[in-house]
Parts: sequence; C-alpha cells; structure tokens
Amino acid sequence: MTLTMPTLETLSAEELRLMNAYWRAANYLSIGQIYLLANPLLTEPLKREHIKPRLLGHWGTTPGLNFIYVHFNRLIKQNDLNAIYIAGPGHGGPGLVANTYLEGVYSEVYPDISQDTLGMQRLFKQFSFPGGIPSHVAPETPGSIHEGGELGYALSHAYGAVFDNPDLVACCVVGDGEAETGPMAASWHSNKFLDAARDGAVLPILHLNGYKIANPTVLARISHEELENLFRGYGYKPYFVEGDDPEIMHQTMATTLDTVLAEIQSIQANAREKGDLKRPLWPMIILRTPKGWTGPKYVDGLKTEGYWRSHQVPFSEMDKPEHVTVLENWMKSYRPEELFDERGALIPELAALAPTGDRRMGANPHANGAALLKGLRLPAFRDYALTVDRPGVTYGEATRVLGGFLRDVMAQNADRQNFRVFSPDENNSNRLDAILSATNRAWDAEMLPEDDRLAPDGRVMEILSEHTCQGWLEGYLLTGRHGFFSCYEAFIHIVDSMFNQHAKWLKSTNRIPWRRPIASLNYLLTSHVWRQDNNGFSHQDPGFIDHVINKKADVVRVYLPPDANCLLSVADHCLRSRQYVNVIVAGKQPALQYLTMDAAVKHCTAGIGIWEWASNDQGGDPDVVMACAGDIPTLETLAAVDLLRRSLPDLKIRVVNVVDLMTLEPHSEHPHGLTDADFDTIFTKDKPVIFAYHGYPWLIHRLCYRRTNHGNFHVRGYKEEGTTTTPFDMVVLNDLDRFHLAGDVIDRVPSLGGKAAYLKQQLRDKLFEHKAYVREYGEDMPEIRDWTWTH
Amino acid sequence: MTLTMPTLETLSAEELRLMNAYWRAANYLSIGQIYLLANPLLTEPLKREHIKPRLLGHWGTTPGLNFIYVHFNRLIKQNDLNAIYIAGPGHGGPGLVANTYLEGVYSEVYPDISQDTLGMQRLFKQFSFPGGIPSHVAPETPGSIHEGGELGYALSHAYGAVFDNPDLVACCVVGDGEAETGPMAASWHSNKFLDAARDGAVLPILHLNGYKIANPTVLARISHEELENLFRGYGYKPYFVEGDDPEIMHQTMATTLDTVLAEIQSIQANAREKGDLKRPLWPMIILRTPKGWTGPKYVDGLKTEGYWRSHQVPFSEMDKPEHVTVLENWMKSYRPEELFDERGALIPELAALAPTGDRRMGANPHANGAALLKGLRLPAFRDYALTVDRPGVTYGEATRVLGGFLRDVMAQNADRQNFRVFSPDENNSNRLDAILSATNRAWDAEMLPEDDRLAPDGRVMEILSEHTCQGWLEGYLLTGRHGFFSCYEAFIHIVDSMFNQHAKWLKSTNRIPWRRPIASLNYLLTSHVWRQDNNGFSHQDPGFIDHVINKKADVVRVYLPPDANCLLSVADHCLRSRQYVNVIVAGKQPALQYLTMDAAVKHCTAGIGIWEWASNDQGGDPDVVMACAGDIPTLETLAAVDLLRRSLPDLKIRVVNVVDLMTLEPHSEHPHGLTDADFDTIFTKDKPVIFAYHGYPWLIHRLCYRRTNHGNFHVRGYKEEGTTTTPFDMVVLNDLDRFHLAGDVIDRVPSLGGKAAYLKQQLRDKLFEHKAYVREYGEDMPEIRDWTWTH
Repeated sequence: MTLTMPTLETLSAEELRLMNAYWRAANYLSIGQIYLLANPLLTEPLKREHIKPRLLGHWGTTPGLNFIYVHFNRLIKQNDLNAIYIAGPGHGGPGLVANTYLEGVYSEVYPDISQDTLGMQRLFKQFSFPGGIPSHVAPETPGSIHEGGELGYALSHAYGAVFDNPDLVACCVVGDGEAETGPMAASWHSNKFLDAARDGAVLPILHLNGYKIANPTVLARISHEELENLFRGYGYKPYFVEGDDPEIMHQTMATTLDTVLAEIQSIQANAREKGDLKRPLWPMIILRTPKGWTGPKYVDGLKTEGYWRSHQVPFSEMDKPEHVTVLENWMKSYRPEELFDERGALIPELAALAPTGDRRMGANPHANGAALLKGLRLPAFRDYALTVDRPGVTYGEATRVLGGFLRDVMAQNADRQNFRVFSPDENNSNRLDAILSATNRAWDAEMLPEDDRLAPDGRVMEILSEHTCQGWLEGYLLTGRHGFFSCYEAFIHIVDSMFNQHAKWLKSTNRIPWRRPIASLNYLLTSHVWRQDNNGFSHQDPGFIDHVINKKADVVRVYLPPDANCLLSVADHCLRSRQYVNVIVAGKQPALQYLTMDAAVKHCTAGIGIWEWASNDQGGDPDVVMACAGDIPTLETLAAVDLLRRSLPDLKIRVVNVVDLMTLEPHSEHPHGLTDADFDTIFTKDKPVIFAYHGYPWLIHRLCYRRTNHGNFHVRGYKEEGTTTTPFDMVVLNDLDRFHLAGDVIDRVPSLGGKAAYLKQQLRDKLFEHKAYVREYGEDMPEIRDWTWTH
Repeated sequence: MTLTMPTLETLSAEELRLMNAYWRAANYLSIGQIYLLANPLLTEPLKREHIKPRLLGHWGTTPGLNFIYVHFNRLIKQNDLNAIYIAGPGHGGPGLVANTYLEGVYSEVYPDISQDTLGMQRLFKQFSFPGGIPSHVAPETPGSIHEGGELGYALSHAYGAVFDNPDLVACCVVGDGEAETGPMAASWHSNKFLDAARDGAVLPILHLNGYKIANPTVLARISHEELENLFRGYGYKPYFVEGDDPEIMHQTMATTLDTVLAEIQSIQANAREKGDLKRPLWPMIILRTPKGWTGPKYVDGLKTEGYWRSHQVPFSEMDKPEHVTVLENWMKSYRPEELFDERGALIPELAALAPTGDRRMGANPHANGAALLKGLRLPAFRDYALTVDRPGVTYGEATRVLGGFLRDVMAQNADRQNFRVFSPDENNSNRLDAILSATNRAWDAEMLPEDDRLAPDGRVMEILSEHTCQGWLEGYLLTGRHGFFSCYEAFIHIVDSMFNQHAKWLKSTNRIPWRRPIASLNYLLTSHVWRQDNNGFSHQDPGFIDHVINKKADVVRVYLPPDANCLLSVADHCLRSRQYVNVIVAGKQPALQYLTMDAAVKHCTAGIGIWEWASNDQGGDPDVVMACAGDIPTLETLAAVDLLRRSLPDLKIRVVNVVDLMTLEPHSEHPHGLTDADFDTIFTKDKPVIFAYHGYPWLIHRLCYRRTNHGNFHVRGYKEEGTTTTPFDMVVLNDLDRFHLAGDVIDRVPSLGGKAAYLKQQLRDKLFEHKAYVREYGEDMPEIRDWTWTH
C-alpha cells in the first residue's frame, strides 16, 4: 500500500546531470551566504578574513529546500505550471535567496545583487549582516508570503493562497519540527475545506530530516506504518521519497512529482469537467533526507551530516585553521568552477533550467499579492442603517445588522471570487448568519440530508481552530484578496502570536518598495467580555487590544463602535483599507441605538466626539466629562448621565464617546492621535474625567498619560472579575455600572452639596437592591433591563 | 482490523438496569440544572414559574459525559481503580456537577447542596445563576483540574496529570469540536513521552457527537477508515463504541472498558515487570453517540436530538406552554420517582453504584493536587554563585549558571519524582543543558545509537509545541507537583491564551476554601528580544509581560534579574512559591556580572534598589536618576553612566535597578508595589528619570502613572525595531543604547554647560561610527564588545 515510486529513468542522464549541478549551485550559494564575506568563488585559497566574523544562519534544512526548488522548477517548465513555494522551515532562508538569485529575480528586485562575482559577494555578505537581509524567508525574499520564523502556519498559509486560485499550486514544505506544533497538526484537515473545482491545489511536502535544534523529531521516529496511517487519516495519499544518494533521489523525486501532478490534474479535471464533488484524496510527499545533506559528515570527529549538529552553522570556530580547511573543501566539493563562469554568472545551460518571467517562483504575482489586488465592490453601507429617531430608545443587534451588509458584500463580489469570511464555528453565534443567504459554509467532508448551508464552494470558512482560520485568512490576504474574521473576543488570544507575525510582516513590507499594499486583516471581536454571561469567566478577556497596540502604530487600528450604525460605518472603512490590522469590538445582543447614519458617519470619521445630545454643558465649561469607549460602557455612561441629570440638573456634564481608540494616543505616536490642543478641547484641561472603557482600564492611562488633564482621569473597565451571571451583574462586579459611574462623579466634583450626598446613598442602596434581586430571580431588575434615555 | 467489541453480556440484566438508572439520574439532574428553579422532582405539574427566567447551559455533550462517568464508576469499583475524569467539553458542566452530587462529594464540599429535595432545588438554582456556580467544569467543581472553557488542552492536561503517578488513570474525554483545535491535534503525540513503567495511563475517549455550535465536526464526517488510520497514525489502538440504543451501548461500553483496562494493565505489567521499554500502542475509545442523546427528538418540528440544535439549551421559549410541556415530558421520561426517594435522595441501590471515599472521581486527591503537594528539596542556591570581585568586569552566562542549580534540584528530588522541566526543543539552546547530567529527555519513540540523553524515564520534556509543553506542565502542577518552563521569549505568546486560563483558574481557586495552593507556574523567558540577532525580527517580542500583568495582581509576578546571581536568587524564590505565575526574563549569552551573592539576595528580596556602587549622589540629591530593568538595559545604563561620569564628573547620577517589576505598581494595586513614600525616596519627586526597560516602554508608564515624579520619567525600550544584526546594533535601532541614554541625560538635566554639549556631539559621532563599523565588519566595535565598568 505504501507509495514509493520505482526509480524509473524519468530524467535523462543529461537532465539529471544538469539538475544536480543546479542543486549544487544553490547549495554552494547557501553556504556562501552563511560563511563568506569575500572570495565568493574561492578563486584564491580561503582565509580567515574571507569569512564572516559572526556566523549566523541555518544549514540543516537548506539542501532539502533547494532540492525541492530545483525539482519544482522542472515541473513548472515542463507543465507551464503556476506555482508558489512556501518554506515552512523559513530559517532555511539562504536556500530561497539562492534560488531566486539563480533564477534572476533577486537581481531584478535588488539590482546591486547582480549576477556576477561582485553581486555574489554582496549576496553573501548581506545575509544576516547589519544593514543586510534577515536570516529567514522574510518579506525581503522575493516569492515569499511566509516568513517561517514562528513555526506552525505554512500549511494554512498555503491553503489560504490557493483558495479561489484554481490554476495555482502551492508547494508547501513542512519541516518535521514544525509538524510537532499544534497549528500545523490541525491544519492538515484543511483539505476538507478545499473545492477541487474552484480552488487550486496544495502539495504538502513533509520534509523529514530527523532533527530539530537538539532533538530528534517525533514524526521521524515513528514507524513507516504509523506515519503512513497518520497522513491517510488526515485524508492524503502519501508518497515516500527517501534516501541520500543524490542520483537516485533526483530520479525518484522527478518521477514522484510527475505522478502527483498528474493526480492533481486528474482530481481537478474530475471536479471541473465531470462535476464530481466527492472529496478527493490529495497527494502529498514525505521526503526523508539527511539533515545538512551533502554537508561534512563529521567535524572534529562528531557526526554532523544527518544529525542535529547540522541545524544551524555546522562548525564555526574559524580561528582554527582546520575549520577553514573543512569549509573550503566542503564548498569546493560543489565544484563552483563548473557552475559559474569567469564573470561569476551561472552558466547558460544551468540558467536555462529555471522557468522564465512570472513562472519563476520568485516572481509569481500571487506571492506579491497586492499586484493582483482588486478593491472590493462595497454596497452603500448607509442602506443598511437602523432608523434612529431619538437616541437611546430603540433596540438593534449590531452584528446582525452588519451581517446584512456582509451578505451583500459577499453577493456583489461573487463573480470576482475574492472575499471570504472566517470564523471558528461562531459565524451564527456571532449573528452574522445573513451571510449564509449569499453563500454557504465551505465543506467538502461527508454531508447528511439534514445539513444546513454546507457546500464545497461555500465562502464562509468555519473550523474550530482559530489558528487555522487565521492562517487561511493571512494566506488569502497575502495573495491579494479580502477577508473578515469574526471571533469570540476572549479566544482571539489564541492567535496572539500569529497576529504578531502578521503585524511584523506588514511593518517590514511597508519599507520594501517592490511590495505593494495588501488588504487589511479585519477582526470583529464579539460575544465580548460584557456579554459572555452564558459561559462565564473563561470566556471573558478584553486584552487583545492591549496586545495589538504594542505593534507599530502604522499597522494597527482599534475601533469600538457604540451601536449598529457606527459598526456599519467602521466596517465599511476597514474593508476599504490597506496594510492594517483592524480590530473592531462590537456586541451581538439587542442593544440601544444612539446615532442616525449621518451622525454615525460623522462620529466614526472623527473617531471621537462630544455627544451634544447627551451633554448639558452647551455654551460653557462642564463640571465633569463622562467619556466612554465600547457599547456597554456607553450604555452605562448614558444611564449614569441620565440619572445624574435628573437628580442634579445643575451639574454640567459633557459626554464624550470614543470609537477609534487610537485618537487617544499622542499625535506624534499614531497618525490618528488627537493633537494636544484638540484633546484638551474635548477633555478639558482641568475637569474630572470619568472614563468608562470596554477593556482593562490601565490601557486608557497608557494611551493618555502625556495629556494635560491626565491626572484627572478616572478609568473604569474590566478588572478581571467575572463569572456566569446577568449582564448587569457583570458590570457591577467590575464597578463599571451606572451607579458606580454616577458615584464616581459625585466623589470627584466638589461642592455638589447635600443633594448629591443623598443621591450617593441612593446609588449604594440601588446596588444592594440589585444584588438581592439577581440572586433571587436570576435576571436583572426590569428598570435596568428596560432603561432608555429620557432626555 | 477495526476494533468494535461484540455485544457480550458483560453486564448482568440487573447491573444494566441499575447503571442505566444511574445514568438517567445524572441526565435528569443535568437538565434540572439547566432549566429549573423549583419543583425539582416534578412532584407538581410543571409551570413557567418553576423554570429559570434566563436559560443558560449546554445539554448536547452532557448525556455522553454522564454515560462515561457512570461506566468509569463501575470500572473503578470493580478494579479499585485510581482514576480522575477530565472533561474536554467543559461546557458539559451540569453533567460533572450531577455526578459528583450523586456520588456524595458535592454535598460534602458544599453542605448547603444536600442530598435531599431542598438540596436538589439549590443544586438546580445555583447553576449559571448569579451568586451561584459557573456553567463549566470550573474550579468550583469537585474532581476537576480542567475548566474546559477554552478548548484544546484536555489531553495535554491528562498526560501532565499521570506523569509520575504510576497507578493513576486519567479518563480524558475529547469532544469532536475540541479535536479540531491545534493544541489538541498536537497533543495526541504525548504518548511518545509517556513511560509505561513510571507514569500512569491516559485513556482518551474521543466523543463524536457530530456537531459543534452550528456545524458538523470534521472527525464525524470522515470515513471510518480515515478515522481509524488517523488514530493508529497517532500511535493508539482505537476501539469503537457507536450507537444510540442505551442497552446495547451499555453492554458495548462495559465490555470495551474492561478490555482497554486489561490492555493498560498488561502494558504496564510488561514495562514494570518485564522491563519492556518499547513504546506500546495505548488503547483509546471512539464513542459515537447522538448529540443531546435521550433529549427530545424534534421540537417545533425541528430535528433536535442528534443535531446541533441540542448544543446549548435545546428549546427555550418557556412562555410557550407547549415548550413547558415538552420539558416536563422530557424530564419525566427519566422517571425520577424511580431514582430518588421521597426525601429527594438517590435510592440506596443506585447510590451503591458509586465508588466510595477517595476513589470517587470527585474526591480523588490528585484532582485537588495541593493535597498531595510536597515542597521541593532545594539545594542552597548560594553554592552556585559566580564570584564577583568587582561589579561589571567579569563575565558569566546567567542561564548556564541556573542550569547547574536546576540540575541539582532535579537530582535531589529524583526519589520524590515530583519535578520536571519543559521546553519546546530549547533546553540546550537556552543553555540549561547541565540538567541533562541529572536526567534525560523523556523519549519513548524510536531511538538510534547516536542519540544523546534520550530515555523513556527522562524528566526534561521537549516537544516542539509550546501548547503541549504548557498543557503538560499545567496538568503536572494541578496534580500537586513542580515544574519549570524555559522558552524563547517571543514564542511564549503562542500560549498567551493558555496562560490566561491558568491565571483565571488560580484566581478562582484563591476564593474556594477547599482548594489548596499549588506550586507556581514558572517561566524562564530567554533567547530574548535583545539577543535574538541570529533569527531576527520574528523572534523579537517582549510583550508577554504586558499580557501577564493584565491578570489579577495576586497571581502574577514578573522578574528581570540583571545577572546570574540575581537569577539564582529569583529562581529559588519562584520554586518555593505557591499559586503564582512567575515570569523570569534573563539572557543566555555571556554577560557582565554585577552583584555578589549577598548583594544579589538583598537586591532581589527588595525587588528594586539603588546601586550605590554605580551612583555618585551619595549624601545628596542626584541630578538625574538612571533606572534600568532587564539585563541588557542594565548593561547599557551602566555603560552610559560610566561614560557620563568620566566626561561630566560633577553630574550626580543615581542608578536604580529593578528586578521585580511589580514594585513599580502602586502598593494598593499589587502586594509588591512600593509605597508612594518609598517610591519617591528612590526616584525623587522632581528629578529626571531616564528609564531603560527590557520591553515595550509604555509598560513602565502604565505602572508608574500615579507616582509623584511620573511626569519626569523618560522611558526607552523596545519599539518594535529589529532584524538580524549585531547585539549592539539591536539596542541602537531602538534608541536604548548607551549613547542615546547618555544623550537623554544631557537633554534633560538643565545647565550642564558647554562640556555637555560637546559630549552630546561626541555621542552622535559615536553612533555614526558604530553604524559604519557594523556595516563594514558585521560585528560590534571592540570597545563596545569589551566594555567593562571602570569606576
């Protein structure tokens, strides 16, 4: 049952000779990048001063990556294949740089790194060198959409890339280290969400080289039978290519690649021409080669090739002359004089092996996705507005309203095939189910008659893996398309580190002229901390915002729309934007609506504003500013204002609502930040500010500490108190409720007199009454549940 | 090849009748918790007012959880088995509460919830009710070490629990929703790290009930053959128990459990008595039952049992009398009058089915781990001290020194079998390799002759999955043992959300009297942002600290020891502590040493201090305070001070070093926080403070914004600039280098005169010189690399 290709003579002797030579060239250039400063072609005896003072880089995975690249080049040329290369072991950067250099793309993108001896010397020197390039397959590497520094996401990126790209094949190399990670282990199941008719193909190549940094890998140390079972269980048809003899391996790899490509084409023809929608068994390759293949077998008497010692720089004590000799002999074993001409250029018969133009994997437009990016057709979001005759009296479900808008975004871009929404089994729970009237959920596993809106060509991507959702979406965006990710707020922390890496990618690409802007990564965080009363404490965490704003200001945006119309305005803006991560936090429960569409657009465009209709400081200074950010804090603030204005009509209150959190940052730190003058105009220079905030309260202080009036800011927010309880009890547990907020005002505005003291006592009584009521009846008091704005 | 037990008559008719009745009781109590406020035994006709106003909870998974519990009770009684129950689908809380109530534990722990009608009414009312208990298998649930709110960690917790508990069996239920997550998908491979001789056994029960919130599950919709292949590929021997007829299912489950327990015992005997170290094929069960099994088949004409509509509350419009009737009929279908006596107690013949005493899964001491916790034997950490004759002139590798200490912690506790270290393939990279002279790496997969320090009974746990490491460690700690997790700083974000859940668990248990304190979760974050020059930008992120301090002050601690002796002192303290998450950030590279052991202990005990030896403000006020936290900021600060003192000897500088970051928080917010008076004494009330911090600079502002002198704080830290470059270039990219810091002093101390202006120009020149030098030579200037303290 095991699929190992017989060593047929797929390659003629001449082809084999040439391909092996090309591979030698790639390996040679990889080693040169890790080790050499000068003397790139070893035209003079190698000396210490030709070698870098600090040796940084990873050799172990590189010859395998190069081997695959060379073979994919052949496959591309032979079949005019449209292929990209995703290097899971991104630390094999030298290999990808070497190959894109050999195929000519590197010199086109970076003219200084020319295809001659001087260019080669620069190529070597710049690698992992100050002012040069990173050691990984970073944004700087042509053809890359995957940095591969943090492991786990190669395969979900690959699937994201081929969604809606029917003729694209993603060659996705998965290292056996990366294969131990959770996100990778889950993402093998992506094949249940791929439509052979509409989408392209991923060819996973599990590269077993046996070792991680200092340990063997799990998958290299289970039986052949278990390994095969595992991938059959994941729904693949695994082909094994195993060995260390280059000639045999070239023949086996070529034969295997011809076979699997024929299978992919047959699967696609079957789906596209015969309409067969049954999930196929996609082929994959398990490539087992020695770690540091073709490297020195022993150094200082210690096993090196085929061992973890090859992982990074296999030997590095360059002050030992014998190490210099080992390096020289090793590099010369690739016979560079046969590969490069006297000018340092790859000889023509080898250069001819690479594909040409956009078929070169370093130049494939999908890997510089913005080149293919078309804007979304967006329906007029105002058409979805809720009617708001008076603020704070009618109810709406913000995310459900958004769902209607997204449904039509989906419908209007159906022919462009460039928009998908992603969610870890929460699309309907998050009340975006309207989208399912414009498309289905993607599903290519078994179906039952009772199934609801599942189809292979659905565009709502739901798997209970935040990692896989995020990886798919990133791959989709990086190849020039658009997407929207809705998630329970607390569990978006599951992808904290993936967000980090994407934000770092964006920050880096902003400084690379040939990388063009991609569509923003849009998060809707809902089922948020204040309305997770069904699940309780484990589902209550608003800290993703804190995490996000640690990243560069030019790539992150955070929005807290207080109602449905504001959510529409913000969502429209985010879907039009480029090169950002946009975080939108909004509730899904029925909630009071405040702004007409016109007012919402104006408010969201400014990002912050005084709500005149709720304030009574017109034409003068307020006694207190009551600020709020987030739907629930807005509700509680308005309820507190209502109560204060009824009891203390002389108190002048200004209500400020913040939609765009970045407005609070200093203007020097964030492009959305208010100038100090504007900030002072809104928040005053000296009046108490009671700030009700959606998340951890100290975030507001972190944003505002440089502002004039910061000393008077008193912030309420989530202080990590929660459980399964009623909505209002949740805010009470965190002192964010209307009674606490009103009490905060009384405490901070001097000389309100006896009436205020009496009110304070009433507020305390109300809190006791609430506590007794919810414990008795299990729901909030009707007067709280049904409160509406009365002014 | 498929293993499905024939329906033997394992259970007598009477046993079957009783077990089914016990299961009916558990299901009845589960539904009661979700729905009822009163009339718990339905002794009067069910009315709207007997039903909760807000219906919260999850029915779908619960009957399956109950079914397994009842069968495990039989297995325990029959074999005097020591077993705990881990409910991956933790939202099936009502089931676990019901079972621990039926076995009597619940009433022992919560006497108000007595085993009678009143107690049952309270049991029902309290569930998901204000002032009551959470909806999940939370810390409040006896027998739980796993909340199961955030999905993915059930299996790694189970493995962690049985490590070093040879007679323990963890019954680990994995939902088919959870099975889609990355962390779960990776953790199946934990069987390669389990020693059948030394450790206990995990019995994974994959519970396929087919649906998540609103979608089918992947594993329920692949072929039987693929499913079986998948788990054989993971190294298990899967047994299938599939169906919906309770009688047949009881027989099949009983037979299967007898079989798998015999297999487990045989595997263990083979390892323990015959010394067979070959990795066994551990059995597992795939249990396929309808979602919401025994619930209403249709409600309002819509399919409910066996469908996603059963996931939460299967029907909830209780203002419809027909729904009340459906509920009444459904609950009565379990015939409560046959299960409970007139007082509301479980009838004796059913009560007799439960195990007794500590064998009850709700009372198993392993699930209240602290009950078994023994302190670690700790060697005298002072014995590992580096000799420091003068500050800042000799070098040491902090984590390597720590490795020696941990080696002896390992050795001295070998007989107690209660200490392990965890790392995602980074133990040696993090220079803790000394530990491997006291134990091996745990490894039960294939071994080769060249392997180094691998053994089934190793106590260094290395898998390239931060999730699995963290899950194992949590399971190990929660069952009363000790551990230490070392990780690259940037990639600890991979477990941000797992940290959240563990911190929430600790916070909750602090308020539960019968839960006793467990050992702290200790992180060593190394290979940190300032010394990841080998890998570059993707490996540079110091934000975990920001994430951690959002959690409750009483459970988190953050330490930044500046040198090896401080690291020893801090590590000793952390290993002794209880109920915290301790985060230690320390470098692994050779670095200058500052404090003698005595000075280090004193400094770390205070957590913050003025370094008199580096300051020249003795006997007077300083002109400037130069504060630092973290090893590299300390180095750069001292280099800046050195430079300033040599050039501007009249400038009075006070050097403050912060080890315990929480000292900066207000005393009212954190128990380690300095009082304002102490803070003012150290930082002055009005002098400029140049603060060099390891991480994102705004964190210092967030901690200090309420302090008197905060307006004069100028903080340097990581501002998200990085790449593959030299160590010193990294600090320069972020303005954290000695030249910038010295310049900051000159900018902020008024009237330093012309000499200072001249120095400022020199500093600028130095930065240019550095830039040119590193770009030419690829390493830092010798005078920077070799700088030592000169005063």
